[in-house]
Amino acid sequence: MQLLEELIRIDEKSGTPIYLQITNAFIHNIRSGRLRKGLKLPGSREVAEILHVNRMTMVAAYDELQAQGWIEMQARKGTFVKKDLPVLTPGRIDAAQPVFSMPEKTMFPFDEKKIVPVPLGDFPEAGKLIINDGFPDGRLAPTEELIRSMRSFSRMATHKKYLMYGGAQGTGLLRETLAGFLSDTRGLPITPRNILITRGAQMGTYIAASIVLSPGDAIIVGTPGYSGADLTFLQLGARINHVPVDGEGMDIDAVEKLCRGKKIRMVYVIPHHHNPTTVTLTPERRIRLLELSVKYKFAIIEDDYDYDFHYASRPMMPMASLDRHGSVIYIGTLTKTLAPAIRIGFMVAPELFIRHAVWLRKALDTQGDSLMENAVAGLYKDGTISSHIKKSVKLYKERRDHLCELLSSELGDHVDFKVPDGGMSVWVKFLRADMVKVSKKAYAKGLIIRDGTAYDADTRRYNSVRMGFASLDHKEQEQAIGILKAAID
Amino acid sequence: MQLLEELIRIDEKSGTPIYLQITNAFIHNIRSGRLRKGLKLPGSREVAEILHVNRMTMVAAYDELQAQGWIEMQARKGTFVKKDLPVLTPGRIDAAQPVFSMPEKTMFPFDEKKIVPVPLGDFPEAGKLIINDGFPDGRLAPTEELIRSMRSFSRMATHKKYLMYGGAQGTGLLRETLAGFLSDTRGLPITPRNILITRGAQMGTYIAASIVLSPGDAIIVGTPGYSGADLTFLQLGARINHVPVDGEGMDIDAVEKLCRGKKIRMVYVIPHHHNPTTVTLTPERRIRLLELSVKYKFAIIEDDYDYDFHYASRPMMPMASLDRHGSVIYIGTLTKTLAPAIRIGFMVAPELFIRHAVWLRKALDTQGDSLMENAVAGLYKDGTISSHIKKSVKLYKERRDHLCELLSSELGDHVDFKVPDGGMSVWVKFLRADMVKVSKKAYAKGLIIRDGTAYDADTRRYNSVRMGFASLDHKEQEQAIGILKAAID
Repeated sequence: MQLLEELIRIDEKSGTPIYLQITNAFIHNIRSGRLRKGLKLPGSREVAEILHVNRMTMVAAYDELQAQGWIEMQARKGTFVKKDLPVLTPGRIDAAQPVFSMPEKTMFPFDEKKIVPVPLGDFPEAGKLIINDGFPDGRLAPTEELIRSMRSFSRMATHKKYLMYGGAQGTGLLRETLAGFLSDTRGLPITPRNILITRGAQMGTYIAASIVLSPGDAIIVGTPGYSGADLTFLQLGARINHVPVDGEGMDIDAVEKLCRGKKIRMVYVIPHHHNPTTVTLTPERRIRLLELSVKYKFAIIEDDYDYDFHYASRPMMPMASLDRHGSVIYIGTLTKTLAPAIRIGFMVAPELFIRHAVWLRKALDTQGDSLMENAVAGLYKDGTISSHIKKSVKLYKERRDHLCELLSSELGDHVDFKVPDGGMSVWVKFLRADMVKVSKKAYAKGLIIRDGTAYDADTRRYNSVRMGFASLDHKEQEQAIGILKAAID
Repeated sequence: MQLLEELIRIDEKSGTPIYLQITNAFIHNIRSGRLRKGLKLPGSREVAEILHVNRMTMVAAYDELQAQGWIEMQARKGTFVKKDLPVLTPGRIDAAQPVFSMPEKTMFPFDEKKIVPVPLGDFPEAGKLIINDGFPDGRLAPTEELIRSMRSFSRMATHKKYLMYGGAQGTGLLRETLAGFLSDTRGLPITPRNILITRGAQMGTYIAASIVLSPGDAIIVGTPGYSGADLTFLQLGARINHVPVDGEGMDIDAVEKLCRGKKIRMVYVIPHHHNPTTVTLTPERRIRLLELSVKYKFAIIEDDYDYDFHYASRPMMPMASLDRHGSVIYIGTLTKTLAPAIRIGFMVAPELFIRHAVWLRKALDTQGDSLMENAVAGLYKDGTISSHIKKSVKLYKERRDHLCELLSSELGDHVDFKVPDGGMSVWVKFLRADMVKVSKKAYAKGLIIRDGTAYDADTRRYNSVRMGFASLDHKEQEQAIGILKAAID
């Protein structure tokens, strides 16, 4: 008991009330066996003196310990550590350190190969430029308008209920608004019942693939391809078959050949601005793929993540708008339209499929942010989103042209690329320099750029990199290309 | 060609530009075979006359169709539907309805038993009172403060980067803030690396169980229990073993007996205010469960979803704060502290486990709302959350007392219950009336109340209901109990 001062440390500066610090310290010491079960404890007055605290503080601590079942106060006998606590032996606790730290590993074993490791992304770093994978410019996002819209919904008495649990499918208001918008602009013949609001294309892809696939199922993706999706399919146990992507998009002859040889459950395709190559799947191939899906009964996941950003003509209508049989699960997102951190996306599919998708969404994430969902619906209705798209398309087209000019004038015979008709990046092949080395050298000089190893799940080397132009203004592009040029030489 | 007027319908009131309506209509007609491949189309002037549109509008539509690859213009020959389109036969398209509607089912088969159906929740309905499962009162949420905090972060130039992609683990600022807060108030010996920010307890549970469990693994849950978690475990293929929950929480003898008989991979427990019964697991049982976890090497998922709301004493410290071996995966949420629709939760675990959890979170949802995460961190730092908790605890205690008085005075010998020490609901057993019938009668009279069938995954009948008191003020409680009384009689 002479140790009490050592066992109970009080931090006057902590935000935690002192009586609670004492309570917690007692519990740790009882638990570790240093205060053994059945031990008679000094009275509150005595402990208060030892610890230099007010006696009422100590009374409060003992009350707390009793209420929580750690000690018992017996009338006229005193205060005791409860006897029927199956207290552990002190074990490997260091007596000098009453608060242990969390172990590095779990006590229980788990299959460390079960969750597929994924790269955690291109993060901005202070003082460094970044050529990202093709993201919009967060600086342009209509954040003020979005926040104003959130506030106005949160103030409307009828919308207070949106702060309670809402639908896992997304708010009715956003689904209605989106059904109208998608039907007008993308020719999708849908009602709000055909829509699940997600948190971006990634969640849509995960949910769709979870419903369609069982472990061991064969699927088809293009190569080079979007590794973010491939890793998700691997996580779900799919066997991935790669088919080439050429200047007209995914090679449909190769798809057909695979279908003849084995049961294909799903084809994942980015027909609009393919990631990474930016090519658009031609109408002929789109229709052939739809025909094959009917013949071989596979699902098409159409990932149309940056639909709005097309510069050569109007965006090409989605395959989903041509699909009369229910082959296509259509995935879209606003994270490219507004900003990556504004997490609203959607899945469009036949109603039966959406019903299953809603169940899974509920199991893994309960529901979306209803307030944010309605705020976004507000921005559709008042025209903010349309005019933001118009403004961004104009600006991004200029940025695309500027980057392409810089690539030609500064890197000339080091690179090969085509000016993309849409999207937010240029797919640049480096003809001589090894991009793994260039990426490292550029980083040392203050520029973050990918090394080209992540464009399919097999990390096959294309020595090509998607160079995002949308989030860099002209001056930033010039700096970035300057550094890249120096890193190549 | 005399049909062109019928094939192309223009809606003057639509928000879609007319040239685009024409473009889309042509595509649908080419696709359906009504405009066959190779067909020579009338010139733009002629079509413009037929459709009563400006000629420039028609030129724009043809340009668009050509850019998208549907038609080709041959110099001096005219305009043709492209020959090499593998156009489908018209099939079952109704000629009178150029825009088809999405089929009810998918063309491809999928396993309709793969996704476990889940009930979609207690939704507020206009003009109806609701006794929910025990949710906070969204009307009290510090929404104004939260939105103000979001705005101030979004305006800070250094935080613009939060609108770009951020970490899948949650923002550094929120994880640091939370590590301090959880260490001070719950005795968790953690650093920001031990935290994954989720979107609520549900996502934490889904991710934790996904890492620990493989299909066919045996787990233990209490009965009655929280069906939302049970359904998630079923979705992941777990075999659920039920052990009774009595007045001291989960029956640990029963847990031990099961462990002796078979390999148990995981025990899911809500030790603080058990859902649905509201009982708190005693210290003795907590320590025995921890000991068993070490002996039998199972994971403990500690779901501490409404930690802050304890009325009898200070909240009891989590089992995770006593766990020196890394047995416990600790799940918490702010959805009960602030509002169900404000979707921030967290998982606390050894670093190795968190690493796997971050990968899975990235695969299923990329990342959280960084702006919202930082806004919440701001509310911790400026004391808004602490004072909101203090205020709510006081108010909810009054509401608990009021509801318990009403239950005694109005429903007296119809019901049996204990005043709960914490949480947001009373677990009420109905002694005579059949709750399935009562729930239906109450609904007809304007009150939504559960029927007691959903308190474990087997829908075993307890004829008991959790009656949430936190989101009903005194007057609303009186109305609700009045309706319930009438429904029982």
